[in-house]
Amino acid sequence: MRRTQLRDNPCSIAKALDVVGDPWTMLILRDALLGVTRFDDFATRLGIPRATLTARLDHLCETGVFAKVAYQESPARYDYALTEKGEGLRPVVVTLLQWGDRWARDDEPPTHLVDAENGRRLDPVLVDRTSGVPLDELEVRAVGRVTEGIERRSSAPL
Amino acid sequence: MRRTQLRDNPCSIAKALDVVGDPWTMLILRDALLGVTRFDDFATRLGIPRATLTARLDHLCETGVFAKVAYQESPARYDYALTEKGEGLRPVVVTLLQWGDRWARDDEPPTHLVDAENGRRLDPVLVDRTSGVPLDELEVRAVGRVTEGIERRSSAPL
Repeated sequence: MRRTQLRDNPCSIAKALDVVGDPWTMLILRDALLGVTRFDDFATRLGIPRATLTARLDHLCETGVFAKVAYQESPARYDYALTEKGEGLRPVVVTLLQWGDRWARDDEPPTHLVDAENGRRLDPVLVDRTSGVPLDELEVRAVGRVTEGIERRSSAPL
Repeated sequence: MRRTQLRDNPCSIAKALDVVGDPWTMLILRDALLGVTRFDDFATRLGIPRATLTARLDHLCETGVFAKVAYQESPARYDYALTEKGEGLRPVVVTLLQWGDRWARDDEPPTHLVDAENGRRLDPVLVDRTSGVPLDELEVRAVGRVTEGIERRSSAPL
């Protein structure tokens, strides 16, 4: 799939996938959200080819997910720091983690999320902000331009 | 990236990306969550090459995200119905939609989510199930095997 196809698509999901629709990119984001900021640390943890890592980090800088912050002058060395836009991807990574924990493995998950302040284990759930009702207890429907012309054969709503 | 690299990775995010770490796959899931179930409908809406669509649907059936349900006998025709495992990906698609709405476009989002029962607009947010506190108001940390050895240079927690 060509990047321009995604970027020019009216749907926000397609546009989002132009930025993060790639396994390496999502794993880079996972590590960034864990606190990794340096090229060599990403390379070592992920076992990613250096040219691939360079390309992905460049794309994530161009799209404003990372900001490059120099921590050394000669030779120039950078931290890849998540921007607010980058931090905004945390819910995507967290929901992907939860789905993987539940559906993509048979053994005990190796990682769980805690509240850093008190060490209490967290159980993230997507709710409607106004009512507090979990989305999986509602019949959620998407309305608007992207959803026109769908003949609903299943009962599955978005 | 080879699929086996992802599948054999101990991290649940990596394992999840083995199933859904591809733009076409995420767009197929988006449409499935909107109620699309048929090969030709996916093909027309997505403008995806038919061979690619076949490969992606096969992978999603093998991994248990879709179940093939015959709706016609000769010639055999199938609905691709989301399983419980497939429905479980809704939070990933919803959080990706929200991020795209907020960060990957300058114009008004073409789609929004409503409660089908009363048409009320929904504003999904990830909270801790026990306390109801939004995750972005907490300092969330990941603990466990996958997070060992990270030298935390930034304050960014997962």
